[in-house]
Amino acid sequence: MLSISQKAKIMPLSPVRKLVPYSDAAKKRGIKVYHLNIGQPDVPAPPEALEAVKNNTLPLVPYPHSAGNESYRNGLAGYYRGVGVAVSADDIIVTTGGSEAILIGFSTCFNPGDEVIVMEPFYTNYNGIAAWTDVVLKPVPCDIHTHFALPPVDAFEQAITPRTRGIVICNPNNPTGYLYSREELEQLAAIVRKHDLYLFADEVYREFCYTDTPHVSCMQLSGIEENVVLIDSVSKRYSLCGVRIGAIVSRNKELMKSVLRFAQARLCSPAYGQIAAEGALQTPPAYFAGVRNEYIARRNYMVNALNAMDGVYCPMPQGAFYTVVKLPVADCDEFAQWLLEEFEYEKQTVMIAPASGFYATPGKGLDEARIAYVLNIEDLKKAMQCLEIALKQYGG
Amino acid sequence: MLSISQKAKIMPLSPVRKLVPYSDAAKKRGIKVYHLNIGQPDVPAPPEALEAVKNNTLPLVPYPHSAGNESYRNGLAGYYRGVGVAVSADDIIVTTGGSEAILIGFSTCFNPGDEVIVMEPFYTNYNGIAAWTDVVLKPVPCDIHTHFALPPVDAFEQAITPRTRGIVICNPNNPTGYLYSREELEQLAAIVRKHDLYLFADEVYREFCYTDTPHVSCMQLSGIEENVVLIDSVSKRYSLCGVRIGAIVSRNKELMKSVLRFAQARLCSPAYGQIAAEGALQTPPAYFAGVRNEYIARRNYMVNALNAMDGVYCPMPQGAFYTVVKLPVADCDEFAQWLLEEFEYEKQTVMIAPASGFYATPGKGLDEARIAYVLNIEDLKKAMQCLEIALKQYGG
Repeated sequence: MLSISQKAKIMPLSPVRKLVPYSDAAKKRGIKVYHLNIGQPDVPAPPEALEAVKNNTLPLVPYPHSAGNESYRNGLAGYYRGVGVAVSADDIIVTTGGSEAILIGFSTCFNPGDEVIVMEPFYTNYNGIAAWTDVVLKPVPCDIHTHFALPPVDAFEQAITPRTRGIVICNPNNPTGYLYSREELEQLAAIVRKHDLYLFADEVYREFCYTDTPHVSCMQLSGIEENVVLIDSVSKRYSLCGVRIGAIVSRNKELMKSVLRFAQARLCSPAYGQIAAEGALQTPPAYFAGVRNEYIARRNYMVNALNAMDGVYCPMPQGAFYTVVKLPVADCDEFAQWLLEEFEYEKQTVMIAPASGFYATPGKGLDEARIAYVLNIEDLKKAMQCLEIALKQYGG
Repeated sequence: MLSISQKAKIMPLSPVRKLVPYSDAAKKRGIKVYHLNIGQPDVPAPPEALEAVKNNTLPLVPYPHSAGNESYRNGLAGYYRGVGVAVSADDIIVTTGGSEAILIGFSTCFNPGDEVIVMEPFYTNYNGIAAWTDVVLKPVPCDIHTHFALPPVDAFEQAITPRTRGIVICNPNNPTGYLYSREELEQLAAIVRKHDLYLFADEVYREFCYTDTPHVSCMQLSGIEENVVLIDSVSKRYSLCGVRIGAIVSRNKELMKSVLRFAQARLCSPAYGQIAAEGALQTPPAYFAGVRNEYIARRNYMVNALNAMDGVYCPMPQGAFYTVVKLPVADCDEFAQWLLEEFEYEKQTVMIAPASGFYATPGKGLDEARIAYVLNIEDLKKAMQCLEIALKQYGG
């Protein structure tokens, strides 16, 4: 009888997905689960975005342009200029979320079997899109003890082969929260230039930077203007994950012509999402300042609480709303499952994302977990209390 | 310097896309262009869909479930039961439009180099998705003089090779408007069963049938339950093209598990679109009856007007809102361009879709065009007048 093709079978299942049934079971047993595992911001979206959708007067919903609505692309170009990225609407193609930006970007730039370098640990969805497009991810290891800073040039040189076509960088980083400096990005640019690679710059956490210096975009690096493919999304910036609006931005005209062909093959990105995203362009700076202060307070509380636990080590992340933490357990996958299946403290437990799923190298990151601080401080306090007690029970 | 990969370069550009600059230029010259080339319905969407979005109270827009919102999937299963397709929510995964349903479906079912049979002329976007997924489309020719009915079994047997993995059928058909009968579908089912193929059934025009017998879905055929992959979309049904909501529906559990993995790789379908689509489930039958009557009136007017023109032959389509018409010109691509670049009648012209783009076999369909009747009758009359005069001028 009919069987599914091999390719379908190898689509990876992330370790967090594997845990979902246990989390559901815990909830059914009446246990409150604090979700430290997800990247879904809890802050309200800007009213400017929500109201734009509620006030729309479309009598029917026609196909938007395959490249995205012109008014939105013009507005978005203005937004980028405001964050120091000088581009025009012609350099932008609106996508159905950042995920589709990666999918179309990989499909455009890489052939099956091409190799792309990622700094590990890395966002698990790169795995999924790489499997989808038959691209081979080649990890270059980062180290928790340097806070996951850019590895030395040698590490990249060792990873580069004749099949290497690109490098993906996520800045600020998911899962580590690391914020790359201008010096590090210049170092990366030199490698990109030397080997003539595409540089995929996933900068969807741009607004979540906690240092006093402005975020440096790969689009600001000189000498690699044709190589940089910016991956963007409104999901995190405006708490609009579900609207599915992202973008591919590049000054490489030939590349963008090809991107448009792929965009045409899937017709267009969602109309209501584009209305929300265009409305969100009116968000006042005070919104971001408020969000930033909130995340700084959460981060400070959480990282201090984690480092106060026996045997736990957590760098202080400077961006995004995640951290990768080293826990005193041999296997975080088992620990995460145990937290949901067996542990409870005052009818509560926590769900964490085992870091092994963020590594491509087998056996790496086993004693690490990604923890997100997308809960309010009161809930974070309870979650940290649970985790501390759990670690004591699990170890003992 | 960096160059785009070969694959990107071969993404096909449809002949209609090639005409867009000419259409834009005609508009700039102050000439009204009647768009007979597009599949964008002009009837208002059901208020139930539009109001659901306007009345939403989301304070932020979280990621919907990768398979689609449970309430929508349950509602959609009810809709399918209402049209004679007995499925449950578990058999449905919500997609970002019908295009993504095909993309994920092809990615799940086929490996690069696999062959899929299409009846030509066929919906051009199958070309785009096939190029994207490295699937090879193998055309089986249909004939305008049989109104593009299903070709005989022999034609399929000749097209099937050891690499054949599937057949795609669009019913009612885009571009021909042909409505396949139960007998034809049973004949197709026998071929599918014999060669153990996937049967992709694109039934997005289900509500647009103009005979007195109900639409027959491939999901109703017995003996091929595991083979059928239904491709659906709310775009045409409710004039909601821009919301980007479609679905993959199949009773093949193994297949649907793999489809879910792909759905997870791109996270989710748009939240506002799902709200609109769920609202649309409340659309009363009177809405569809009204739409149907309107399209029947337009079709009857247009097909009669076409057949009254010298040298024109147009079958009477029984579904969708297109027809493929034979024109007394040697090359419809050139004619369509001439209509936009040179022709005008009382400051008006028409844009048609040359049928060559709907054929995979080079040289086929050169004297044919797809014409959509998505204009109101008054505009259709003016458009037909333009076309008649244009054909006389062009031929003379």
